[in-house]
Amino acid sequence: MKQKIAVLGPGSWGTALAQTLAENGHDVRIWGNVPEQITEINTYHTNKRYLPELHLPESIIGYTELAEAVEGVDAVLFVVPTKAIRSVAQELVQHLTTKPVIIHASKGLEQDTHKRISEVIAEEIPEEKRQPIVVLSGPSHAEEVAVHDITTITAASIDQKSATYVQELFMNDYFRIYTNNDVIGVETGAALKNIIAIGAGAIHGLGFGDNAKAAIMTRGLAEISRLGVAMGANPLTFIGLSGVGDLIVTCTSVHSRNWRAGHMLGEGQKLDQILESMGMIVEGVATTKAAVELAEQLGVEMPITQTIYQVLYQGEDIKQAAKEIMLRDGKMENEFQ
Amino acid sequence: MKQKIAVLGPGSWGTALAQTLAENGHDVRIWGNVPEQITEINTYHTNKRYLPELHLPESIIGYTELAEAVEGVDAVLFVVPTKAIRSVAQELVQHLTTKPVIIHASKGLEQDTHKRISEVIAEEIPEEKRQPIVVLSGPSHAEEVAVHDITTITAASIDQKSATYVQELFMNDYFRIYTNNDVIGVETGAALKNIIAIGAGAIHGLGFGDNAKAAIMTRGLAEISRLGVAMGANPLTFIGLSGVGDLIVTCTSVHSRNWRAGHMLGEGQKLDQILESMGMIVEGVATTKAAVELAEQLGVEMPITQTIYQVLYQGEDIKQAAKEIMLRDGKMENEFQ
Repeated sequence: MKQKIAVLGPGSWGTALAQTLAENGHDVRIWGNVPEQITEINTYHTNKRYLPELHLPESIIGYTELAEAVEGVDAVLFVVPTKAIRSVAQELVQHLTTKPVIIHASKGLEQDTHKRISEVIAEEIPEEKRQPIVVLSGPSHAEEVAVHDITTITAASIDQKSATYVQELFMNDYFRIYTNNDVIGVETGAALKNIIAIGAGAIHGLGFGDNAKAAIMTRGLAEISRLGVAMGANPLTFIGLSGVGDLIVTCTSVHSRNWRAGHMLGEGQKLDQILESMGMIVEGVATTKAAVELAEQLGVEMPITQTIYQVLYQGEDIKQAAKEIMLRDGKMENEFQ
Repeated sequence: MKQKIAVLGPGSWGTALAQTLAENGHDVRIWGNVPEQITEINTYHTNKRYLPELHLPESIIGYTELAEAVEGVDAVLFVVPTKAIRSVAQELVQHLTTKPVIIHASKGLEQDTHKRISEVIAEEIPEEKRQPIVVLSGPSHAEEVAVHDITTITAASIDQKSATYVQELFMNDYFRIYTNNDVIGVETGAALKNIIAIGAGAIHGLGFGDNAKAAIMTRGLAEISRLGVAMGANPLTFIGLSGVGDLIVTCTSVHSRNWRAGHMLGEGQKLDQILESMGMIVEGVATTKAAVELAEQLGVEMPITQTIYQVLYQGEDIKQAAKEIMLRDGKMENEFQ
């Protein structure tokens, strides 16, 4: 049945998801706070900064006023950067009258509080104003979804009915949705994998090969799983689309901003130069800091994350760091068991 | 302490492992049944068919007589193709006088019986003739180990002492070993991942992108984990080096024979032409058949493996097969829980 959906955040992923929903026959509105971008969407049906090749369905309407965008909606999809989640939720709650399903597709942990995105949303939007929250995550370059390449992602919620609702909203012959009830695992996997993507990029930038890439991805997955489990996740979620699936796509593709930032680090560039030259948010940099702080609180060993933190925040030489991590004592696998 | 070790099978992986052991100061002998190849190793210290760039340590001695190769050894390392495991073990048992640790680094399941490699070895070499068996597996292109690129693998045994012994044999500053007690999980992961590598190659050959590659790898991992668990494995092993680690390296690198065979299938070539043109064993082709038979016996759903089987053995059109698998009903993740 045709649903009315507001997509908050017209970046590349928000735009690709809005396109998919519109192609599935839904009434889609997209909200952003850059007037020129919204005018471009409404006038030319393009979003050239984020998806230069795309011509959007003309049924998608852009809004700069949040109140207008969410009027009468059945669902609201957050695709804003992690650091904007709380303020957007605070503004949104003032305009909600329809008890919509809240979906989010953002990947990170809130700075300082270390809260997951669904926790931040739940704090700002009380249950009487909304349906249960659903997290959307998985291996999905927006550029490929935009051209209808086959893509699979996870819709996770503590409420199976809401997860199934979101599955049905998006599912079509190029976009395949699996449901999952482990919100904590899906959100922590999505956020923490960006740390490992920085590491995998660095390993490549340093000139190491495929064995080393697989090593950092696998041992990195083991340590983000350990932290996720300490935060309440099911370890098996990390073997799924939002865990290893997203890790694979983020660590083995040049589309990934986190991988690219790591690659430049490995080649010897400095972090502030890299962030300036990219001009987009690299979520993994802030997530590394949050993960190190959380690991300390929860008593979880995360040697790869710790090493990336030292390179990013404490000026440690990256070649030296890579060497040290190889010379640690022999271990057993699956230490989080 | 210096150990005397016989490596059975001078292919690329056996040769790279022999080199590592020799560089760690052990007394290494390598056995093969092609006299010209053994003469080349002893005369020129090269093995050009398998590792063209390599100059082997001159301390490594080649043998064509198994009895001579294993005389007085502390450990025997099997690196022969799966289909040769039983016959080599049958010959070996006649010459063992030292109760060596038996290590194997082969990846497959025995045709028809569907037995794991350590099961085949244990059937042919009784306990009073050997120490416990240790399985060596992980993300490791021989070409990269040969040039000392950073590599991490798993040594699995039901006997922790034997696993630690093998860890100490191999560990150095470019080769890092983790121990594990889940022999079933490590062996099934190692064997079954070759099926998914064929599928990932085919997806690439068909022209799909990174999202689809991550999708087949992740959903493929879920189904090989389900089969592994039905065979007695710990599901968490599939998140480790011999599971997802080896899957990553096999599915994202052109070094992989299984991936290359799949890629040619995706481009429209026929299986018999592919196998002929490659001239090396593609273990995943036989493993696909074994897995489909096992899945039927054990009542495990393996849609990706089943589809690859239909393409390999029943002449199904590969484009049609890729489309059908996308149009299945929506599912929950982690169905093996």
